[in-house]
Amino acid sequence: MQNFVFHNPTKILFGKNTVSSIGEETLLFGKNVLLVYGSGSIKKNGLYKEVTQSLGAAGATITEHGGVQSNPLLSHVQVGIQLAKDNKCDVICAVGGGSVIDEAKAICAGATVQHDVWKFFTGKKSIKSTLPLTTVLTLAASGSEMNSGMVITNETTSQKFGFANKLLFPKTSILDPAVTCSVPADYTAYGAVDAVAHVLEFYFTKEDPYTPVQDRLMEGLVINAMESCNRVLNTPNDYQARADLMWTATLALNGLTGAGLGKVGFPMHMIEHSLSAFYNVPHGAGLSAIIPGWMRYHAATKPQRFSQFADRVFDIRKGSSSEKAEEGINALESWFKAISSPTTISALNIPKEDIPKIAENALTLAKVWRMQDYDSEKIEAVLNNCL
Amino acid sequence: MQNFVFHNPTKILFGKNTVSSIGEETLLFGKNVLLVYGSGSIKKNGLYKEVTQSLGAAGATITEHGGVQSNPLLSHVQVGIQLAKDNKCDVICAVGGGSVIDEAKAICAGATVQHDVWKFFTGKKSIKSTLPLTTVLTLAASGSEMNSGMVITNETTSQKFGFANKLLFPKTSILDPAVTCSVPADYTAYGAVDAVAHVLEFYFTKEDPYTPVQDRLMEGLVINAMESCNRVLNTPNDYQARADLMWTATLALNGLTGAGLGKVGFPMHMIEHSLSAFYNVPHGAGLSAIIPGWMRYHAATKPQRFSQFADRVFDIRKGSSSEKAEEGINALESWFKAISSPTTISALNIPKEDIPKIAENALTLAKVWRMQDYDSEKIEAVLNNCL
Repeated sequence: MQNFVFHNPTKILFGKNTVSSIGEETLLFGKNVLLVYGSGSIKKNGLYKEVTQSLGAAGATITEHGGVQSNPLLSHVQVGIQLAKDNKCDVICAVGGGSVIDEAKAICAGATVQHDVWKFFTGKKSIKSTLPLTTVLTLAASGSEMNSGMVITNETTSQKFGFANKLLFPKTSILDPAVTCSVPADYTAYGAVDAVAHVLEFYFTKEDPYTPVQDRLMEGLVINAMESCNRVLNTPNDYQARADLMWTATLALNGLTGAGLGKVGFPMHMIEHSLSAFYNVPHGAGLSAIIPGWMRYHAATKPQRFSQFADRVFDIRKGSSSEKAEEGINALESWFKAISSPTTISALNIPKEDIPKIAENALTLAKVWRMQDYDSEKIEAVLNNCL
Repeated sequence: MQNFVFHNPTKILFGKNTVSSIGEETLLFGKNVLLVYGSGSIKKNGLYKEVTQSLGAAGATITEHGGVQSNPLLSHVQVGIQLAKDNKCDVICAVGGGSVIDEAKAICAGATVQHDVWKFFTGKKSIKSTLPLTTVLTLAASGSEMNSGMVITNETTSQKFGFANKLLFPKTSILDPAVTCSVPADYTAYGAVDAVAHVLEFYFTKEDPYTPVQDRLMEGLVINAMESCNRVLNTPNDYQARADLMWTATLALNGLTGAGLGKVGFPMHMIEHSLSAFYNVPHGAGLSAIIPGWMRYHAATKPQRFSQFADRVFDIRKGSSSEKAEEGINALESWFKAISSPTTISALNIPKEDIPKIAENALTLAKVWRMQDYDSEKIEAVLNNCL
């Protein structure tokens, strides 16, 4: 185990009928609330009404910033920052999935400075202060509700960049699994894939070879993500299954899995971000298209690691390390297929000819994230494994 | 999964050479430091010098309160509270294991009120404010370094009582596994037993029957506690094994395992506390003397649960649920024996005739903890199973 600092101050309110606490929780930090949300589905399912009533009853003045889209755009973040400044907002409340929460985090950071917020993403400026953030989560996927990371797409430069800062932890996040019961099958599956991907990134790229405590935690989370997703797809209104998937996704990227692993990479996300930036594919769909190819590319270099994954997650106990490794990857790929998430970039209608362009784009993010072990040749090789 | 609030604000600094940060971390919260420690072993191994130098260099004024004993006593807590008041201490720094940290927590709570601190333990008063606390952990066991609980023994009434309050989370805890390398074999083993017991209490008493996310987490922690303890006993200076045991013990009782389980009990601790109160046995030794008997008493009522434990933790896959359950308990008992931790109260030289007296004492704690499902008859029956 490597040295680490673990400090996750986010307060989680989890369970039925918790959304009505959002007003009280938000007003602990400010009164002029910027309410950030997405395409308006929360107006259809009643969540918007519940949140605004709770905020209003607590005494909030609300400025609205709706219309956040999946793979949230820098230009829309900039509009939100100006709104927050113009209305002297002193707290931000995000109601949505990872995209909405990430955009809200970017507004939290950008609202306290005069320079363009993108400079944080390119590493030209560092965050010194933020507005406080509360959230109501509507999708089990990104983990953003209990971590300090955010991802934004600069549509001018076709760059989907992300980073983390300790000032970006939400103060309070409300997780009511019932809210997610209306999420359709495809996005439920993509969310589960995202949670699995967060675990796999750390599991297979960690610097420290021997981390048994974190291993068991990560293996358990992958099993739970798959099992709960299967149950949800079978019975979309199964509250308990929704709850298991939701808490699993939160724990999959709240800092605990990575604590002690030493340096970790996000290579699958790094490549996927280019797919989202160019083709606007759902993040989870892009990930499942990359994961099997990426794993097969690396399995030969770490057969013991991939074999342990196969053994512990899929109960594959027979054969050599290499055989078990391959069988484990096949099993994961079969699960992606079973939940109708694509397992190749071809399935996303991305032509082979685009690979050099994708690799070039991904490389810019690899440089920002300091993943020196990836050059364009290696990224192309991985992508060729994903056809 | 049941509704829950999870909010653990403790900052963990984990790893080699982290102790030297204690001055800087403590001075974030105050300048007049009450330094709480135990029998003086930290003066022999150099830790006392390192901590006081770090505090001094950061500008602290130090008041010392040493001599905390295992199963810390109320009278000693009261001395510490008076010291803190007389010296106008505004922060407390605990250097030790769970006993030292628990006593420091009691001082944190008692130093801000005029009434006797024991009233918090009997539920006659509730905590409204505390002094801030930082810790340097020296024993992998109690989890107190990252939770809001504390246990103190009132020697006048022979009551070992404990409770939790959200104001009792340490602000910062420093966990350097190298510090624990000098812990002797017996206390290393008792610490691992304590960590296992914390998991088992929740695992077998939880209100909600279906908690797959928490189950995998808990099962992994039990496996890690056993494996890392075995490695440590084999090679006491194995830093990595010490690190795994230390982080496992912290995660075993930091609120995460219990979040979502609904109501849980601490029946094995409830009974063990009476053993410690009467016979001053090490807490972990008392626990391993109770656990197999307690488990056998309950296995018949929850064969599926005990069978899952056997399967997931000990890879026992053959036989009926009852057979697997019994085999799992036997396997755990064998592990206790292998690490030389007692598996019966007879091994602690506690005579059968004392059982009614022990049960009567335990019942007073059962009432404070509101464990209505335990009367003296049931406690005696469990204890008779532990002979």
